[in-house]
Amino acid sequence: MIESLSLPEFPAGHVWLCGAGPGDAGLLTLHALNALKQADVVVHDALIGADILALARDGAEMVFAGKRGGQSATQAGISQQLVTLAQSGKRVLRLKGGDPFMFGRGGEEAQLLAAHGIAFRVIPGISAGIGGLAAAGIPVTHRDVNTAVTFVTGHDESVDWSAISKACEVIVIYMGLKRIGMIAKALLAAGRGADMPVAIVTDASLPTQRVLQTTLGMVEQDLAKHPMTPPAIICIGRNVSLRDVLKRGQHG
Amino acid sequence: MIESLSLPEFPAGHVWLCGAGPGDAGLLTLHALNALKQADVVVHDALIGADILALARDGAEMVFAGKRGGQSATQAGISQQLVTLAQSGKRVLRLKGGDPFMFGRGGEEAQLLAAHGIAFRVIPGISAGIGGLAAAGIPVTHRDVNTAVTFVTGHDESVDWSAISKACEVIVIYMGLKRIGMIAKALLAAGRGADMPVAIVTDASLPTQRVLQTTLGMVEQDLAKHPMTPPAIICIGRNVSLRDVLKRGQHG
Repeated sequence: MIESLSLPEFPAGHVWLCGAGPGDAGLLTLHALNALKQADVVVHDALIGADILALARDGAEMVFAGKRGGQSATQAGISQQLVTLAQSGKRVLRLKGGDPFMFGRGGEEAQLLAAHGIAFRVIPGISAGIGGLAAAGIPVTHRDVNTAVTFVTGHDESVDWSAISKACEVIVIYMGLKRIGMIAKALLAAGRGADMPVAIVTDASLPTQRVLQTTLGMVEQDLAKHPMTPPAIICIGRNVSLRDVLKRGQHG
Repeated sequence: MIESLSLPEFPAGHVWLCGAGPGDAGLLTLHALNALKQADVVVHDALIGADILALARDGAEMVFAGKRGGQSATQAGISQQLVTLAQSGKRVLRLKGGDPFMFGRGGEEAQLLAAHGIAFRVIPGISAGIGGLAAAGIPVTHRDVNTAVTFVTGHDESVDWSAISKACEVIVIYMGLKRIGMIAKALLAAGRGADMPVAIVTDASLPTQRVLQTTLGMVEQDLAKHPMTPPAIICIGRNVSLRDVLKRGQHG
């Protein structure tokens, strides 16, 4: 199917840090597929679906490196594992949800690999904050709405929500589900209207995708009524309203 | 190669709005390839390379809708063309550089399609501001550097650079090459240091990729010495410095 392209050979002892996108296997890149077809070992997150892992070559070793679900793999432990596997001469594919550099901690892994003189390649993936919102009918930028968009982690207490609110009409929050009540209050205090549209998307791009469309004033209450499970992408801004138009024509 | 996945059938009279990524054909998604293999007509930007267009099925009609290079296609004209082609019963693939919703004007095209009752699908792509910077060895987020990143267009005069500077350590600018001198001055006036790292990347992810690594204080002068051609991605922030480490191990 892609015979006319020459995709790179995966050398033994190398590590490829690769994003798998928001969930839908069709959102893998050709480079990601090429990596899966050659890797000796796939070190993957909890977020990577079985249909994606099934694309790996026969006999590839699967290593679960998720930080959720009762496992206790630490980031330092995962990075060290990549080093050890590469030093044993394996083709090591580190497969992450979303993009390795967009809140994906790929930079830390790359730093340790570089420090050990291990060659690596970074393969970007579709980040859930863009492609996952698209699957929910929400464009992260839109004419007449915004010329800037801020992507921010919700779990960090040092975030200056007032400054972000003033800088950008549209805010996309990763890992913010548990603190959305506090975040909404901070944005309201910074001058955002209670009627500012909010969307929360879980399992973005998958058949199990759920979208809660609400407002800054109602989000905490609505979420209590309709509980959702992390990981979630949260979008705050008038672009969320476009969903009402866009989902009308969107199929599949 | 992807026989185990069932990717969607492209129905006649539908429009698929699809991102092609930053340039490297290997950064196409499987959905994008699936779309190219079925489309009757491909309406594409100037940014889409010949190796990507060569993946289209034999006999597909190619329509150039670039806004650069002396052509004068307007956004309204392109959107209307998609409607007309779909109404003639064709499978219409609208192929854009980067991502359709990340400064890609896909929302406007989707609105017009929805208004005409034409069914569409949005296929996200790797945005140059994430994947193109990765190809230059720059992670858009990194522990100890930033918990937020702002993506902003450089060509809009209404952007509040002072507010953005206060909100986010890392700023990624699309379409900002011609105004970078003014933008640097605004960020310096907002309190950023003259030694704040800056990288400008053109032809990101392609063999012709160029990177100018400089500082906020020197960017205008360095760019005058080493002129670059749009489109460019500009990254401002301490994460740019990680390039010195990451490019050491990065191959290919």
